[in-house]
Amino acid sequence: MARRLFDKLARESADPPGVTRKSYGEGERMAHALMIEATAGFGVEVAHDAAGNLFITLPGEDRSGQILVASHIDTVSHGGNYDGAAGVVAGVAAQAIFHAAGRKPPFDLTVLVMRAEESCWFPYSYLGSKSALGILDPSVVDSLKRSDTGKTLAEHMRDEGFDPEAVKRGASLIDRKRVVAYFEPHIEQAPVLVNAGIPLGVVTGIRGSFRYRNATCVGAYAHSGAMPREYRRDAAAATGEFVVRMDELWEDFLARGRDLTVTFGELMTDPQQHGFSKVAGEMHICLDVRSQDQAVLDEVRTLIDPMVNEIGERRNVRFELGLLTGSSPAVMSGPLQEMLIAAAETTTTSYRVMASGAGHDAATFTQVGIPTAMLFIRNENGSHNPDEAMDMSDFDHALTVLAETLAAPVDRWRLVRG
Amino acid sequence: MARRLFDKLARESADPPGVTRKSYGEGERMAHALMIEATAGFGVEVAHDAAGNLFITLPGEDRSGQILVASHIDTVSHGGNYDGAAGVVAGVAAQAIFHAAGRKPPFDLTVLVMRAEESCWFPYSYLGSKSALGILDPSVVDSLKRSDTGKTLAEHMRDEGFDPEAVKRGASLIDRKRVVAYFEPHIEQAPVLVNAGIPLGVVTGIRGSFRYRNATCVGAYAHSGAMPREYRRDAAAATGEFVVRMDELWEDFLARGRDLTVTFGELMTDPQQHGFSKVAGEMHICLDVRSQDQAVLDEVRTLIDPMVNEIGERRNVRFELGLLTGSSPAVMSGPLQEMLIAAAETTTTSYRVMASGAGHDAATFTQVGIPTAMLFIRNENGSHNPDEAMDMSDFDHALTVLAETLAAPVDRWRLVRG
Repeated sequence: MARRLFDKLARESADPPGVTRKSYGEGERMAHALMIEATAGFGVEVAHDAAGNLFITLPGEDRSGQILVASHIDTVSHGGNYDGAAGVVAGVAAQAIFHAAGRKPPFDLTVLVMRAEESCWFPYSYLGSKSALGILDPSVVDSLKRSDTGKTLAEHMRDEGFDPEAVKRGASLIDRKRVVAYFEPHIEQAPVLVNAGIPLGVVTGIRGSFRYRNATCVGAYAHSGAMPREYRRDAAAATGEFVVRMDELWEDFLARGRDLTVTFGELMTDPQQHGFSKVAGEMHICLDVRSQDQAVLDEVRTLIDPMVNEIGERRNVRFELGLLTGSSPAVMSGPLQEMLIAAAETTTTSYRVMASGAGHDAATFTQVGIPTAMLFIRNENGSHNPDEAMDMSDFDHALTVLAETLAAPVDRWRLVRG
Repeated sequence: MARRLFDKLARESADPPGVTRKSYGEGERMAHALMIEATAGFGVEVAHDAAGNLFITLPGEDRSGQILVASHIDTVSHGGNYDGAAGVVAGVAAQAIFHAAGRKPPFDLTVLVMRAEESCWFPYSYLGSKSALGILDPSVVDSLKRSDTGKTLAEHMRDEGFDPEAVKRGASLIDRKRVVAYFEPHIEQAPVLVNAGIPLGVVTGIRGSFRYRNATCVGAYAHSGAMPREYRRDAAAATGEFVVRMDELWEDFLARGRDLTVTFGELMTDPQQHGFSKVAGEMHICLDVRSQDQAVLDEVRTLIDPMVNEIGERRNVRFELGLLTGSSPAVMSGPLQEMLIAAAETTTTSYRVMASGAGHDAATFTQVGIPTAMLFIRNENGSHNPDEAMDMSDFDHALTVLAETLAAPVDRWRLVRG
């Protein structure tokens, strides 16, 4: 069943190379309909919330509790088929297993298909999970614009038949007290599992981040051959030094066993003004720093200001770091990790306990105190590109572990909320 | 007269902010016509060569020799009024001085207004001087395209009424053996004279260069939070290290008293592919290295290959340096420098003896063995921008020194060719 769903998803959202399922776009709509169709025979209850997040609920033995298996189903432009969809399909396939066995899950088992996770469409993190929980900042509903259409989130919600005004009021179909656990299976977006030869990862936490997405180094344009070194205000040289010093700092933190990533994803002289014979007068800089450990994020952040000031003074340039954005590290539920590990061991599936470097909607659920877990599935060639490649046998391992976990008796779940 | 010419040039080619006189464009055509009009009453002989370079010749006492005062009159887009034009106007004003005094210059005094010096229009160095000397590579006449029109150099020459086929054949109005000296007055494009408080510079030589205008660092895109350091192929981090190591190398050369400039004028991640949460998979790099000393250029060039290979291996990226271009250092004539210095001292004008960091058409004339000199005029705010600012009193100093030099007796010039 899973293979058929993946194939159909890929076929119906093909956009060579890869697939494109825009948030609140045609591909996402198709994928939602496909999941409803796939579960139609299971006796499920189907609902959309005001934001268009889809809830497919297989009634449980004990209807006072709810277990969510959730992910998103949108993709980046020309992305891969599995980033997001793997979690949704795993949830649907787990429901199929209960249905085929003629068994009810211990609690209501809800596949939650969240909207708009890929922030390339709406530049905002966790739109779907925030709206599903009724905690989306109301102001963004009218202000966020989809990158391709320029239309607002509210307009796109309305176009798809949903209710942005209710989203602003915090409408939600989730009764947080009723949620026993939230699971988000997801392909790994790095090659850690591939390199280790292990199919599954049990996630300990999601790295938090801080970002200067639009920093600038301001120097002065000058003639490359004529301007002596001592008079230069060279934004490229100063930025090069910033990059190298942050890289050294990263090495140093790792050597001390502290979790950190440092990435300059964008570095650009101004194409309108730069030239081969001009000292660079300006440089666009985008810096992303992540850690599982909030204390590391805080420490690195406080080191950056003196660093750029020192470089700036010495090199006669000015760094303008601009808006600081970011997210807090999210810690996964210990009891849920233990249940996943127990299931992996019961089913003799090898796994690794590991951090998630990428952000996921799961982080939003930890923020409101819902016990949350993530299961990573080995995947080649990263994500957000047409070459991402999850092996179906790895997906089957994940499904086995997930289904085994979900079938745990009611008593076992009592431990989760502590 | 000079002020009126500068004002008229600026007015007729105004393109706020600044002026635009495209090579083989309307502004250049206007400027040529203006110089012909300005010299019409001097008894000059006017000629255009096949490429459209303009020769305005005031007959000398001894017509067997010719002194060229030359520069270009095109500008970059929204450039300043003086880069190029100052040299042409100085030549015309020097002719005016002879004419007003009712004196003939010792030899034919030719103001040579060269075409297409600003390589932003046709990406090629010294088009005007090479075509004037009949040494332009014939293949570029049909292959070079103007950056704004996309039309070839040949088409533009034809549109302006000139003869690209003759240019290819090496047609020239210059009889090299007859040329006694070539002078190119030019605004200084760096703030050395401004900072020193000195109006004039007597140029010793023009820095040569080598350039990798389109180098690339190839790594691999990956998720910024998820991809561990040890698996990264980070083009931005590797390029940062390249920039810093070249900067250290530069410092080291200067400390050893060797002439060098190192400039990364363009550094760019790919706007189509980069992102704040992606390790940079590719980086465009443009490197310009200059020195008055060919040995320094050679030494630096041989250091770059092992440097980028070492960085590339360690960081698991690949540097592709691409096409190497450049120019040889050009040494100015010692006797002509002495004549300029003598004229400055006679007229009590302060001057500095200095290198030219920027390239100039004068370099082409040194290459064919013509005694060549350059006189720099103090200028604020660099060149190639609307804020360049030459003080007219500094121009007058330059004109005084130039006219005094040009009036030197025939015997004095015999020393120049040695």
